[in-house]
Amino acid sequence: MPAPLRIGLAGLGTVGVGVIKIVQQHADMIAMRAGRPITITAVSARDATRDRGVDLSGFAWESDPVALARRDDVDVFVEVMGGHEGAAKDATEAALATGKDVVTANKALLAHYGQALADSAEAAGRTIRFEAAVAGGIPIIKALTEGLAGNAIRRVMGVMNGTCNYILTRMEDTGLPYDVVFEEARALGYLEADPNLDVGGIDASHKLSLLASIAFGTQVSFDAVEMEGIGAVSIDDIRRAGDMGYRIKLLGVAQMTGRGLEQRMTPCLVPCDSPLGQLSGGTNMVVVEGDAVGQIVLRGAGAGQGPTASAVMGDVIDLARGIRTPTFGVPAAHLTVPVAAHSAAPAAWYLRMRLVDKPGALAKIATKLGEAGVSINRMRQYGQSDGDAPVLIVTHKATRDDIQTALSSFKTTGVLAAEPVALRIEDV
Amino acid sequence: MPAPLRIGLAGLGTVGVGVIKIVQQHADMIAMRAGRPITITAVSARDATRDRGVDLSGFAWESDPVALARRDDVDVFVEVMGGHEGAAKDATEAALATGKDVVTANKALLAHYGQALADSAEAAGRTIRFEAAVAGGIPIIKALTEGLAGNAIRRVMGVMNGTCNYILTRMEDTGLPYDVVFEEARALGYLEADPNLDVGGIDASHKLSLLASIAFGTQVSFDAVEMEGIGAVSIDDIRRAGDMGYRIKLLGVAQMTGRGLEQRMTPCLVPCDSPLGQLSGGTNMVVVEGDAVGQIVLRGAGAGQGPTASAVMGDVIDLARGIRTPTFGVPAAHLTVPVAAHSAAPAAWYLRMRLVDKPGALAKIATKLGEAGVSINRMRQYGQSDGDAPVLIVTHKATRDDIQTALSSFKTTGVLAAEPVALRIEDV
Repeated sequence: MPAPLRIGLAGLGTVGVGVIKIVQQHADMIAMRAGRPITITAVSARDATRDRGVDLSGFAWESDPVALARRDDVDVFVEVMGGHEGAAKDATEAALATGKDVVTANKALLAHYGQALADSAEAAGRTIRFEAAVAGGIPIIKALTEGLAGNAIRRVMGVMNGTCNYILTRMEDTGLPYDVVFEEARALGYLEADPNLDVGGIDASHKLSLLASIAFGTQVSFDAVEMEGIGAVSIDDIRRAGDMGYRIKLLGVAQMTGRGLEQRMTPCLVPCDSPLGQLSGGTNMVVVEGDAVGQIVLRGAGAGQGPTASAVMGDVIDLARGIRTPTFGVPAAHLTVPVAAHSAAPAAWYLRMRLVDKPGALAKIATKLGEAGVSINRMRQYGQSDGDAPVLIVTHKATRDDIQTALSSFKTTGVLAAEPVALRIEDV
Repeated sequence: MPAPLRIGLAGLGTVGVGVIKIVQQHADMIAMRAGRPITITAVSARDATRDRGVDLSGFAWESDPVALARRDDVDVFVEVMGGHEGAAKDATEAALATGKDVVTANKALLAHYGQALADSAEAAGRTIRFEAAVAGGIPIIKALTEGLAGNAIRRVMGVMNGTCNYILTRMEDTGLPYDVVFEEARALGYLEADPNLDVGGIDASHKLSLLASIAFGTQVSFDAVEMEGIGAVSIDDIRRAGDMGYRIKLLGVAQMTGRGLEQRMTPCLVPCDSPLGQLSGGTNMVVVEGDAVGQIVLRGAGAGQGPTASAVMGDVIDLARGIRTPTFGVPAAHLTVPVAAHSAAPAAWYLRMRLVDKPGALAKIATKLGEAGVSINRMRQYGQSDGDAPVLIVTHKATRDDIQTALSSFKTTGVLAAEPVALRIEDV
């Protein structure tokens, strides 16, 4: 049997320990599948003394991940430390500079420095694999770059932050408002130290920007993601959307439009009976639309020790087999700089507003919509409990610009009792 | 740029034409992704004169697919003719014997001769890729052999015959009986020339046997699949199962049990709100359970020109990139001969029966179940329209042997008005 592939593992948190468990428990199975043994040579973490429940005695210890990355007895540098500056970035660069392939779960690092790192990898004849960085255990990077490589991709969509999906599902199930469920999630340890990474949509947008790059052959452009978190989603909207047959999801969408690459991570309505609409709790889902294959849906755990370590090991086993696809699917020099197109694709919209109790109020709103070129598909007016009339409108397809024009013009009518809510209905 | 990868394409039916379309329409995109151009050198089909709507003028024509497979100017032999004997087999063997890799959509050929062909491929230093043979455009072979390679697979399940799922869904939607919907499907061209390939479960079992091989590292053992078609599924059972919160699917299940490898392709009940239960129409779905990753669900079109050609091209592009994983995921010589275990895994069961209108009838049935060691989870007796009483029972987990013991003993009670129906409820 050929020589082992030797891992240097930086980071002994949940994911790193998961990687060690798989390597130790499945050594024979993995050697059979990979065609050679896979071993861990050296590890690195902040605290060398903590009991992590796995046997570390066979591994060399490096306190500095950069030193780990430079070791001569490491073939693949596995980075599961996290953080997009500092040690993670330095160590990844050091690994590439000294001729190692890199396997990483670090979405933030790649979202910010993906192009430079891919350039460095190719200059060294190496690659960076990052299946674990997007949608946990779901093999979506592999599906896009390899399995569906014969397709021009039309659109990639996904629910890729389990915490947000948990919060939205829990609000729907319990009727509790956002703030209460947010605190529940925090108490359960579901939130990052900076919760805005989750509920602000940043973490999911990191992932979306990576998917967009490999789907469309463009340089990663995280800064161009139109991003809106779930903090403003009200229990009212969850209920009203449900009445109309929709669920609200923090949905990432990337598509190439006539005006450029559109990347959005925003609360959207999706039909209750669609795969995305049926997704509850912390599970992730990615939907890919290709010109030949049509729609492919992948669903699975988006986080956690086992799923993330599974993704890391899939990448490591590929490298052991000699599979070395370019980092973003095509050579880094051929990745194009995308033109950012914000919400260019038209969509149906859900509009919720409260109108004052005056004759002709609804007619005024309808007139303004018509003037903005937005036509009404469905409209529902609810009983007036407090004098104001809750009104829901589902529009036919319209651009965001047209919707914003209409919303602005509503203000001149004097019939709005509160700021209206507009949410996109994604066609899934 | 390196030399092109040259395809010899055997079969110019729907899928073959789909492959030509992708190669012609996306030549630049594919060359970028594969790192080299992919061209078609020569083609083969029965009728050289028919207009297929694509330009064949640039390709050499071989009337004999074996001659095509042997050509010196072919690197990869793509077999989309179908049929598991005769020309398809001969040509595949000829391609391997003359040092070509093979990409095939031919599930029947691999289900019957997979081991011998994998042996031949490895003897020649080549591989056989068959993403298109299982679940159409869904990249499930790649997911299992590569993306999830760090997992010990617990179970693989799937709805992998779109025609059967169409028929079952249509029966539920319309209330029409099986025979009527079967004739509808035939008129719509959804059925194979031999419909038993579809409704008898043979086609889906071919696919299941391939998934079982790569999931568990075993030799393909199609003959060991426990197979039952959908011909006996009644509209009554579809309705009654629905009352209890289940849908009936022709579900393939492969799992390694303490007694050996269990492979089943049978009508099963699954919860309406599970991903499998929500699958309607001709779509396919495969569910994989791995020890690290948990449950991964993949969904997409299981047939058709674009999806199947997409899968073929994914394999071809991998070969162009130099990716040459062993045919069934591990070297052919290491595939083990599985011990076949028929329905070893216990399950809950759905039992439907009609009891004669006599006092104590239900008690007699319940007693017999208890004697067979089967306990009742839920029971429902319907109003008696014609003297006999329809009774539904959902059991707690029991083996098929115990259920069959119970069913046999029912006959001695004298209270059955008709043959009882027993369907497995798969835990999904």
